Amino acid sequence: MDELLQPLIDGDRRALSRAITLVESTRPDHRARAVALIAALPDRQALRIGLSGTPGVGKSTFIEAFGTMLTGQGLRVAVLAVDPSSARSGGSILGDKTRMEMLSRNPMAFIRPTPSSAQLGGVARRTRETIRLCEAAGYDVVLIETVGVGQSETLVAEMCDLFTLLLAPAGGDELQGVKRGIMEMADLILVNKADGDLLATARRTVADYAGALRLLRKRPQDPEGFPKALPVSAATGEGLDKAWAEMQALIEWRRAHGHFDATRAAQARHWFEAELRAGLLARLDQPRARAEIQRLGEAVAAGALAPGAAASELLDWLGHAEEACTGTGAEVE
Amino acid sequence: MDELLQPLIDGDRRALSRAITLVESTRPDHRARAVALIAALPDRQALRIGLSGTPGVGKSTFIEAFGTMLTGQGLRVAVLAVDPSSARSGGSILGDKTRMEMLSRNPMAFIRPTPSSAQLGGVARRTRETIRLCEAAGYDVVLIETVGVGQSETLVAEMCDLFTLLLAPAGGDELQGVKRGIMEMADLILVNKADGDLLATARRTVADYAGALRLLRKRPQDPEGFPKALPVSAATGEGLDKAWAEMQALIEWRRAHGHFDATRAAQARHWFEAELRAGLLARLDQPRARAEIQRLGEAVAAGALAPGAAASELLDWLGHAEEACTGTGAEVE
Repeated sequence: MDELLQPLIDGDRRALSRAITLVESTRPDHRARAVALIAALPDRQALRIGLSGTPGVGKSTFIEAFGTMLTGQGLRVAVLAVDPSSARSGGSILGDKTRMEMLSRNPMAFIRPTPSSAQLGGVARRTRETIRLCEAAGYDVVLIETVGVGQSETLVAEMCDLFTLLLAPAGGDELQGVKRGIMEMADLILVNKADGDLLATARRTVADYAGALRLLRKRPQDPEGFPKALPVSAATGEGLDKAWAEMQALIEWRRAHGHFDATRAAQARHWFEAELRAGLLARLDQPRARAEIQRLGEAVAAGALAPGAAASELLDWLGHAEEACTGTGAEVE
Repeated sequence: MDELLQPLIDGDRRALSRAITLVESTRPDHRARAVALIAALPDRQALRIGLSGTPGVGKSTFIEAFGTMLTGQGLRVAVLAVDPSSARSGGSILGDKTRMEMLSRNPMAFIRPTPSSAQLGGVARRTRETIRLCEAAGYDVVLIETVGVGQSETLVAEMCDLFTLLLAPAGGDELQGVKRGIMEMADLILVNKADGDLLATARRTVADYAGALRLLRKRPQDPEGFPKALPVSAATGEGLDKAWAEMQALIEWRRAHGHFDATRAAQARHWFEAELRAGLLARLDQPRARAEIQRLGEAVAAGALAPGAAASELLDWLGHAEEACTGTGAEVE
């Protein structure tokens, strides 16, 4: 049994941090250990909440306020970030702990900063595994935040029980260029900054989104009235309890109607298949394969070998022993 | 030697059509035959011109007029389409030959309709191989058109010597929401419909794009003044000769400075690596692998097995013989 397992289950924060560092590592011995550790985790569940919002909508302030409200109710909260863009530029400009100062000093909360270098695929694996670690460590809610760019939203939606979109109040009836695909992923749209001068604008924005959401096709995993748009103010705390109540109501409904477990099962399957493809492609990174790819690539570049013929040759080389020994290659269709 | 090879080289159109049907097939015996046929093709080169433009900019009319001008100069012209979206919806609404009626009856031209079903990856392979077949069949210019959506432009740019963006005149100084990434791929921006009432607007649009292009970083493969924006009219033919002269000047410069061959070599290498990844992932589609994936996927969905552990198990199963026989697995890093 891994030495990290028991302290992790007992809620030791250092053990959790070390376990996350382990799943972030790409060293093969670390990877093997991480896979074994994850497989041995007890089956505790947290509510996995995805939160997307572009910079400027007040995501950090929202997490700070929302997280503090939850810990005030006796819930343990973990915050993870999926931010391939900041990962690419070498970590977020402000550290995640600086962004959420109050929550980071809260013993009921655990904030894991974005790792300093990662690719989207690596971020996905790391985040999925980190969620499992946080669940095993006894956290009740895992907030997975992402900036509203590229594919990271889809990625986060695929690992959450609930996907929340945080938006800023918008002038007029413009829908802030929110892509339809992202609207379709959202379970809850929260219009932040519904306070002070922006209150009226925020309410109008909520109405606009509510109207837009009604135009979307009803999804089987939604009770009547969902997806829903609500005003919140991270600054004053207004609306946060209502948002949390709606999240709980949605999840209760999904649990009662079998959608919660069905979604988790489908997500686990999807994760398995993604790991499978990544693992298979990793064979091309082996030193001997790399050398062969280099050799054939040069012949292709020189025009001495057609690209397709070179690929066939390398695949034969990779699979030769496999076919000879087990015959699996004979069934290629 | 493949029975299609000699007639194909001799310029027999039916042989070319049959060879394209062969490369479009996914049957393993067809695939093997296609790989061998492509590998045996003589090293004839055509100028590969990519052409992107959203529906409504007059792409078909442009190809019809531009292609007819080229055949009038004694050049043989092939037209291919990369359109995964129409492929997904079961072929283009109007057949490609209907769209380009004059060119399709021209004995110097060859138009290959979009295949009725394909995925982006499949479209890429099919198009790359079809380009090679057209070159071997003696075509001087291969036009590869794509609609301006998603990743198809990147894909086409990666298989062309020259990438052209066809745009409509735009009111004001808006740049029609053309994505920066696509601007950066373009060698030539052609603003169509520069005739009649739209002439002044088209000229202003050309000036706007010329200004935008000047802001882009200079690429090593560009002579002074490129990328360039020009007005054209597919309807009147105005500007088509100038566009063709610019294309030739650009290609001459690239040939003289080694960029033409270097780009082709890099493209061939890229193609080889893409084929390699596709070929490797195809192993997961083998019947026995599918059955294993199904079995493990159910255990994962039921929560009996962690996704990562299941992936490891399947990769071991796939690679067991390989490792045992050749030891390649021992070097995984």
